[in-house]
Amino acid sequence: MKAIRVGLLGLGTVGSGVVKIIQDHQDKLTHQVGCPIVIQKVLVKNIDKKRDVELSRDILTTNVYEVIEDPEVDVIIEVIGGIEETKQYLLDALRAKKHVVSANKDLIALYGSELLACAKENGCDLYFEASVAGGIPILRALEEGLASDRITKMMGIVNGTTNFILTKMNKDKAPYREVLKEAQRLGFAEADPTADVEGLDAARKMAILARLGFSMNVALDDVKVKGISQVSDEDISFSKRLGYTMKLIGIAQREGQKVEVSVQPTLLPDHHPLASVHNEYNAVYVYGEAVGETMFYGPGAGSMPTATAVVSDLVSVMKNMRLEVTGRSFVDPQFEKKMKSPTEIFAQQFLRIHVKDQVGSFSKITSTFSERGVSFEKILQLPIKDNEDLAEIIIVTHHASEADFIEILQQLNDLEVVHEIKSTYRVEGNGWS
Amino acid sequence: MKAIRVGLLGLGTVGSGVVKIIQDHQDKLTHQVGCPIVIQKVLVKNIDKKRDVELSRDILTTNVYEVIEDPEVDVIIEVIGGIEETKQYLLDALRAKKHVVSANKDLIALYGSELLACAKENGCDLYFEASVAGGIPILRALEEGLASDRITKMMGIVNGTTNFILTKMNKDKAPYREVLKEAQRLGFAEADPTADVEGLDAARKMAILARLGFSMNVALDDVKVKGISQVSDEDISFSKRLGYTMKLIGIAQREGQKVEVSVQPTLLPDHHPLASVHNEYNAVYVYGEAVGETMFYGPGAGSMPTATAVVSDLVSVMKNMRLEVTGRSFVDPQFEKKMKSPTEIFAQQFLRIHVKDQVGSFSKITSTFSERGVSFEKILQLPIKDNEDLAEIIIVTHHASEADFIEILQQLNDLEVVHEIKSTYRVEGNGWS
Repeated sequence: MKAIRVGLLGLGTVGSGVVKIIQDHQDKLTHQVGCPIVIQKVLVKNIDKKRDVELSRDILTTNVYEVIEDPEVDVIIEVIGGIEETKQYLLDALRAKKHVVSANKDLIALYGSELLACAKENGCDLYFEASVAGGIPILRALEEGLASDRITKMMGIVNGTTNFILTKMNKDKAPYREVLKEAQRLGFAEADPTADVEGLDAARKMAILARLGFSMNVALDDVKVKGISQVSDEDISFSKRLGYTMKLIGIAQREGQKVEVSVQPTLLPDHHPLASVHNEYNAVYVYGEAVGETMFYGPGAGSMPTATAVVSDLVSVMKNMRLEVTGRSFVDPQFEKKMKSPTEIFAQQFLRIHVKDQVGSFSKITSTFSERGVSFEKILQLPIKDNEDLAEIIIVTHHASEADFIEILQQLNDLEVVHEIKSTYRVEGNGWS
Repeated sequence: MKAIRVGLLGLGTVGSGVVKIIQDHQDKLTHQVGCPIVIQKVLVKNIDKKRDVELSRDILTTNVYEVIEDPEVDVIIEVIGGIEETKQYLLDALRAKKHVVSANKDLIALYGSELLACAKENGCDLYFEASVAGGIPILRALEEGLASDRITKMMGIVNGTTNFILTKMNKDKAPYREVLKEAQRLGFAEADPTADVEGLDAARKMAILARLGFSMNVALDDVKVKGISQVSDEDISFSKRLGYTMKLIGIAQREGQKVEVSVQPTLLPDHHPLASVHNEYNAVYVYGEAVGETMFYGPGAGSMPTATAVVSDLVSVMKNMRLEVTGRSFVDPQFEKKMKSPTEIFAQQFLRIHVKDQVGSFSKITSTFSERGVSFEKILQLPIKDNEDLAEIIIVTHHASEADFIEILQQLNDLEVVHEIKSTYRVEGNGWS
């Protein structure tokens, strides 16, 4: 029985996890696929570095093309990260008729379509389950389990760092800066946390999810992004008072033939299933016309969960190879991309403003909304501690178009009675039973 | 492009849902599979009945063998339910080289292994995603997404009726009988609710899950079952006081080469993700050595969710047909079945007893535990309203073997100071962070 041979690009924590799983589960994997897996070549930065996994020194190399062009290698597993260079490696690998498994969300979000096209051209598989929500087999669920349904909405907590930070802010009533430092100390946030806290990482994953869920070529640029660095502990405590939990939520929604995709700090009712996804955990909520509400929950990152997803992809590729059906793994997008305009995106909005505490303030504000046909679900007015001249007003609107809401904000800003617009957040999941 | 032709056994709510999905999503399905689907023959009880779906009268029949033996039919979809007769139909269908998709958990739990063997022998596919937790693609996740992991534990809320009843009992503080009646009125419980409330339905699903998750021929008889009909509202309110939520939980657990599978009313910490699965919803929590904790949540029943799962299976079968790789869908069990004995099953236990309120009662009770090396995590003693002679004692033990716990219960029963053992429940998920 001929073994299937793997070339591994990268032997960091995920790469080592992949090696460990392949070594520890050799029996189970062979049983499932019907032939053994051999790790043939491994790209490393430094051959002499001491490692947790046992690998013969002979198979380590610092030259990426010794892996990609090794005629014995059947499948390339890419866990080195990076974008432009790595894209070239994978294109070269595919052209050399190697199947590819990648955990690289940055790369797939930017160049997924191009890489998939190249894979198809060369009759090769390209799998990337680990690129979204590491330990959650969500891409598989969208491609197969919900294959016969029409998915109309996906909401995801797809970034562990920001969920960890918001969970702590919510629990300890601590300010953002402080919690970010703690997250960095604990290894849940990187030294430069920008990609996470500004929502870019989540946006990449939402682009990938939207592409598969809606069968449409959604690009990273199509995703509107707002991060959590401006979220204040007051915002969290006021929203809590109204029964909401703040989460960084990626939303992909389809109405008719048009879609919207965004990432932003969002308020969810406390009893919404996504509201109880804590710490570094991820979850993706999927609404399908027939199936209704489903949710997939699990670790979003971490070397072993990510490695598990990578090896599951490897198993799929190996099955395809043995069945001689590679190169057909993902179907081409079925629909032409059509993004909604701001007049077509409707949502409830949470708005916190400081107004001058004088007769008529309130009615001037509310008439700004009613002139544009926007009504309220909740209103809360409170005095501001240590400031008798101002009052705190919190409004949760009924559904309003993004265009109307922006217009309203501008008009409020121009009102003399408005001292400051402190914050606005999208509100989701109110229909949840 | 040759169409793939479906024979449908049953045109009740699920069957009609299947027809509706196939008709409404013809485009998407054809796009995914590369050929059209045709509904060729449909078994019904009464040809003249008025129906929600539009089907030519010519393709309806009351003779099951006109469907099974139709030479044009490629795939049989079975949504009629029933066990012995239906088994024979499916065996005959498989022998006539028809692929089979079934939503029949009773049948699969009892005869799954035999049917799979027959499918394999005839080079046919047999899929049954809809048999466990309707709208949740959990079998797929176990077979593929977590393929490279070693699953050590599954806990499932896999019966909507009992979850609906326990949710209501918990929320409204209403007694079991009353809530059951409400559930029957709302259509969440059947006129004869036995299979649901006594845990048999959940046991069937756990047998199927354990078989796939542990790759072992677990039979329905291997599943220990206790239903919810004995759960009192006092049990729920006392467990709530200690921070627990009562759920009917199916547990499948593996240690080394041995497994245990059971269904029983179980106490979970309130913050455990399964504790917030409400009403008729289902969820399956899966622990894998590498991936850690994941959870899959969704509708457990309902005609459209079940129909979605059925059509997803149909899509898998059709893909396999087009790729000419049918008959290899599920792998044979990898391990010999080894069930744990009561001395090998360890769990925390909740125990509620009424004791005579006299000097020394408490120490007699606690020494019964300590003699068998079982210690306590929580103890609560309370007076009993309107009865000065007795006291209520609630104990949550640390992990104890089932054998030891049964022994302790017998000894407690023999103690003169023990008036009555009111209830015992397994406690799970305390390690949950």
